[in-house]
Amino acid sequence: MERTVRLRDYKIKIGQMQTGTQNLITDVNGVTVGQTTLSEGDIQTGVSAILPHRRNLFKEKVIGSCHVINGFGKTMGSIQLEELGTIETPIILTNTLSVGAAADAVIDYTLRANADIGRSTGTVNPIIGECNDMVLNDIRKQAVRKEHILAAIENASSSFKEGSVGAGTGMLCYSLKGGVGSSSRLIQLPHGTYTIGVYVVTNFGHLQDLTINGNPIGQKLNHFLQQEEEADKGSIMLVAATDLPVSDRQLKRILKRSVIGLSRTGSMILNGSGDIVIGFSTATTIPHEKPADLLRLAYLHEEEMDAAFRAIGESVEEAILNSLITADHIIGRNQNERPTLSYLMKKYNIQLNTQKDASP
Amino acid sequence: MERTVRLRDYKIKIGQMQTGTQNLITDVNGVTVGQTTLSEGDIQTGVSAILPHRRNLFKEKVIGSCHVINGFGKTMGSIQLEELGTIETPIILTNTLSVGAAADAVIDYTLRANADIGRSTGTVNPIIGECNDMVLNDIRKQAVRKEHILAAIENASSSFKEGSVGAGTGMLCYSLKGGVGSSSRLIQLPHGTYTIGVYVVTNFGHLQDLTINGNPIGQKLNHFLQQEEEADKGSIMLVAATDLPVSDRQLKRILKRSVIGLSRTGSMILNGSGDIVIGFSTATTIPHEKPADLLRLAYLHEEEMDAAFRAIGESVEEAILNSLITADHIIGRNQNERPTLSYLMKKYNIQLNTQKDASP
Amino acid sequence: MERTVRLRDYKIKIGQMQTGTQNLITDVNGVTVGQTTLSEGDIQTGVSAILPHRRNLFKEKVIGSCHVINGFGKTMGSIQLEELGTIETPIILTNTLSVGAAADAVIDYTLRANADIGRSTGTVNPIIGECNDMVLNDIRKQAVRKEHILAAIENASSSFKEGSVGAGTGMLCYSLKGGVGSSSRLIQLPHGTYTIGVYVVTNFGHLQDLTINGNPIGQKLNHFLQQEEEADKGSIMLVAATDLPVSDRQLKRILKRSVIGLSRTGSMILNGSGDIVIGFSTATTIPHEKPADLLRLAYLHEEEMDAAFRAIGESVEEAILNSLITADHIIGRNQNERPTLSYLMKKYNIQLNTQKDASP
Amino acid sequence: MERTVRLRDYKIKIGQMQTGTQNLITDVNGVTVGQTTLSEGDIQTGVSAILPHRRNLFKEKVIGSCHVINGFGKTMGSIQLEELGTIETPIILTNTLSVGAAADAVIDYTLRANADIGRSTGTVNPIIGECNDMVLNDIRKQAVRKEHILAAIENASSSFKEGSVGAGTGMLCYSLKGGVGSSSRLIQLPHGTYTIGVYVVTNFGHLQDLTINGNPIGQKLNHFLQQEEEADKGSIMLVAATDLPVSDRQLKRILKRSVIGLSRTGSMILNGSGDIVIGFSTATTIPHEKPADLLRLAYLHEEEMDAAFRAIGESVEEAILNSLITADHIIGRNQNERPTLSYLMKKYNIQLNTQKDASP
Repeated sequence: MERTVRLRDYKIKIGQMQTGTQNLITDVNGVTVGQTTLSEGDIQTGVSAILPHRRNLFKEKVIGSCHVINGFGKTMGSIQLEELGTIETPIILTNTLSVGAAADAVIDYTLRANADIGRSTGTVNPIIGECNDMVLNDIRKQAVRKEHILAAIENASSSFKEGSVGAGTGMLCYSLKGGVGSSSRLIQLPHGTYTIGVYVVTNFGHLQDLTINGNPIGQKLNHFLQQEEEADKGSIMLVAATDLPVSDRQLKRILKRSVIGLSRTGSMILNGSGDIVIGFSTATTIPHEKPADLLRLAYLHEEEMDAAFRAIGESVEEAILNSLITADHIIGRNQNERPTLSYLMKKYNIQLNTQKDASP
Repeated sequence: MERTVRLRDYKIKIGQMQTGTQNLITDVNGVTVGQTTLSEGDIQTGVSAILPHRRNLFKEKVIGSCHVINGFGKTMGSIQLEELGTIETPIILTNTLSVGAAADAVIDYTLRANADIGRSTGTVNPIIGECNDMVLNDIRKQAVRKEHILAAIENASSSFKEGSVGAGTGMLCYSLKGGVGSSSRLIQLPHGTYTIGVYVVTNFGHLQDLTINGNPIGQKLNHFLQQEEEADKGSIMLVAATDLPVSDRQLKRILKRSVIGLSRTGSMILNGSGDIVIGFSTATTIPHEKPADLLRLAYLHEEEMDAAFRAIGESVEEAILNSLITADHIIGRNQNERPTLSYLMKKYNIQLNTQKDASP
Repeated sequence: MERTVRLRDYKIKIGQMQTGTQNLITDVNGVTVGQTTLSEGDIQTGVSAILPHRRNLFKEKVIGSCHVINGFGKTMGSIQLEELGTIETPIILTNTLSVGAAADAVIDYTLRANADIGRSTGTVNPIIGECNDMVLNDIRKQAVRKEHILAAIENASSSFKEGSVGAGTGMLCYSLKGGVGSSSRLIQLPHGTYTIGVYVVTNFGHLQDLTINGNPIGQKLNHFLQQEEEADKGSIMLVAATDLPVSDRQLKRILKRSVIGLSRTGSMILNGSGDIVIGFSTATTIPHEKPADLLRLAYLHEEEMDAAFRAIGESVEEAILNSLITADHIIGRNQNERPTLSYLMKKYNIQLNTQKDASP
Repeated sequence: MERTVRLRDYKIKIGQMQTGTQNLITDVNGVTVGQTTLSEGDIQTGVSAILPHRRNLFKEKVIGSCHVINGFGKTMGSIQLEELGTIETPIILTNTLSVGAAADAVIDYTLRANADIGRSTGTVNPIIGECNDMVLNDIRKQAVRKEHILAAIENASSSFKEGSVGAGTGMLCYSLKGGVGSSSRLIQLPHGTYTIGVYVVTNFGHLQDLTINGNPIGQKLNHFLQQEEEADKGSIMLVAATDLPVSDRQLKRILKRSVIGLSRTGSMILNGSGDIVIGFSTATTIPHEKPADLLRLAYLHEEEMDAAFRAIGESVEEAILNSLITADHIIGRNQNERPTLSYLMKKYNIQLNTQKDASP
């Protein structure tokens, strides 16, 4: 895979914490990401699959939670996730009108691996998130089919591309080409070093609001582009992974801080944007079958949470910016297109790192 | 349609309020119900569709809400429903592993009627509820297909059957045959007479807990049947309709009282039962497109809510009992079966109305 | 203390599970209850204090949760309880207009025992619940003062009276004299025997709705009394204690089932009734100060929760009925009074246990 | 009143929308603010009262809502506010250990004006928010008494001071002197011009995180000051007022966007900070007594909400910065003090408006 130019290659450092090795969600040990990209003519869409681990998730659930920043979205699986605090399938992201197909595929995938479902044990709760890629993609065609979702699950790996790929293929962000972005942070605590990583599909916002590390790049670009403002029919899906030992309540507290990073890139969390965070901790697994004895959980004291809050805030901000900076140009449905940030930066000689300087 | 014997035919009157004309959810003016029944051999399942009105729901949304009694369930569409307080599709109920198919069908149905979706306007939020009918139905076969869901929507009518039909075909309740039940109540207020109606798909509970109007019938039947207790992998889906003028917050308050009726039939709201209420008011419609002026809502003063609380409590209790009393016998997957309440009452000469008597 | 006649003395057994030794909340090991009763003329009110343990609660917090059945109430402390999942003070119940005084007293009590508060550590979150005893009590006089609350905390013991005492002194329930009630259940699991106990202050409902073990006693009494219906300005406060090893999410699931017992006594959860449950588990304590290592929690597998659900449902039903059956007659403000259930049963020769019979 | 130097006097303009006349919460017609300041030696604390209107709030309630950003706080009144969607008292802000006193005072205030409370109608739900001012204030002394709270209510006016006054007297923010800040925005819609205003008491954050309009001022100051990091035991209380015609659900959506402004000033929403928003709309009043007819509400179509979201985001950001920039120096408990932002800017010649520039 050729090396992608990411935010840090422009000498922009978001926040104060150290990143993981790859600065990706897959820095969390055991987490893998698979992506299916459908990019041809009017079809500009795809699938992302995030797997907490590669074993049988239904039998070894992970502690999970979700948080709705703005609920104009069709994410599936949240009710059971809230009630039980566990995730038992891969997390699938795709376009809005393919949530049904994705649910079907996840059910198939889980049934195949678990012959007891619907026989001696109950059913499965697929976790599916979505954004609306209707500008570049002919979303009415529902091009994403079961095989695309299964392919994303099957090709999951600890390395993956960002930008116009997977569920991010047809997405727009701040009126530019959006897509997939990721980032991670290390958390140093007395009892160990842990990692938080995020994976985002960005599809929200107006150009005028785009802010990069405090720098109002969107306003500058707006001078050149003089775009008409479109109503936001977008969304951002955020998936967070960590190996921090936390309870589901603590995990939810962490997820809630993703709005910090989102706000700092310029989002006003507009009405039409379904902004939803799903997260899990790999530190503990919960067996599907009731064991003879009690379950055991090791978890943080509440006063140790601050580093995790900071880590997810920083990671989300950087992941969103990575999605913009790595996005490739796409001409989609009806010849619709939006410029990429990297193209505009070159064209208008925009410097990202000159305006902000912490030295006195 | 031949006349079904319902709870009131046994001289049992739940609560104190007057029922609507049919004692069905469709007593709420404009509400219709469609059902598709798949009942052959190992396939004992189906679809129920509840339509708030017969016009274009996406263009004329109704005020809606939902309430999770116990969230071990896979209901879809709740996040947007909570955020915006509106319902814009038929409400579909089916088996747990067919939620994806149902979502696909509702999307198709809505796309057909709305050429602007995915072009000049955003997407649609399907509302899908489910119960797990795995004992009688080979749920792994996912027998419910798009055409079955569309058929249920298309055959919606103001009269419908209860019992082993629609989404209730393969359901079990209190270790007996469960299924579809309905009931309604009239609400007299100074400014008008209103109706609340409920439609339930019952699939929960242990025989020992079944209580009919305060009478511990389940314990009596348990003496005869000596059934082994099964872990509850069931659920109850409740849909409530009203023409009361209420805000979405007030509607949610009403929906929360459905637990009263549920409790009084004997439910202990066990871990494995996904108990979820979805409701709407037909009193106001919300246009999809932003009008030039403000929206207007007429709604109850909070102190007028008590009659509605009582009405839904009574309706839910009676609808659940109707689902039991009207259920037909089904032999399903693996020759599994459960007795019907009407059969047992005849066989063991159980009287429903002798034990409870309000006279001093 | 002379022996009080309770529900079981009438040969009424609610549910199927075994009670704890005393059939009181204090059957949960370490839990104590203190009560201050102010009963003279127009002043008919009081204070109840429930202590999870007798050590320093601020330094050794217990896992806690709360659940709002109907939020027309002024309970204090719920926001932090939801966020952190811990209780760090005695739980105080009193009349609605004395919540401020109760908060002040709990702060004083906690400051005295913790010299570091407001110096080297933060502040304290008092948990205060309330019901409105305005019919019997001149609530406008705010007769409850700091010393009454401190006295309740100080006199906490493992045995206590029910009926017209403590916070229940001036309360009405089902148009009869209400007050304090309690009950408990044992939970048998493979790894141990646990206890759930509840303590209620009952102040809600209409006579016509009162149901005792499925028996519509309220309707019978209504024949005799022909009372005018009053708008419900009441409330029920429920406190649940357990030694079950559970997470705060699991505890909340348990608390939610208290509505089962409430419904079965006849409550329609009317608009004006603030119905709120607060609960804690004594199985684990959470240190105020961050330890060097991770915290450890032993907790139930989700499939072991059913017994706890049943236990709280049964305990709440019995505790409410105990509050009615043990209540003493009070003539209060403006010579207001309501009959006691025990008086009416004698007067009208009401039999509680004849109507319901589980034998075939 | 001498003119205070505010953020805009430094030529810093937060966001893109126009402010109200005074750039204060009181730009919302009818809203008034009263403040009591206790500043002497070890006592550095106070009270703020925000009144939605000057008539009888209990009899003419306003639509209200609240939103918990982080729940490590003791705000009182939220349960009923969530259930009923109305505010019926002044909103009082004070220090954490004076919430009880504030509740008492609000009850007194409301009882005096409403002789029917506790006689023919129910009780009142005081709304009290708090922050912990323990560094500068001897909070254990609970210096705020009933008369101070009543004084704040009584002196409420449409103009008021910011900085080290009222509930903000002893507060710290970003390790500097914090306090009271306010700001407002105008919202242009086809059917009218509306206003949103916010009032904040700031008491949270670490110096290193302080960001002014994208500019990392906190990092610069940290170079000079080399402060030790303190655990955040702070909080921010936010009160938002508007005359926008909105439902309580819509109001809550607006309140949720206050986190945007909070994040942009640098907050990481740390564990110990209770960050809570309370808001109301003055567009409609809800009568306490049930009228003969239905209530009527005019409200926005959901697609008109974006301007309100932007307005509160911008107002909160500016109000927080105003609280810092207007704060006066205080030497408090134990000779504790924190520098003011205005002092440091002068001392280190910090320019606020040079680093950020939207021109290309």
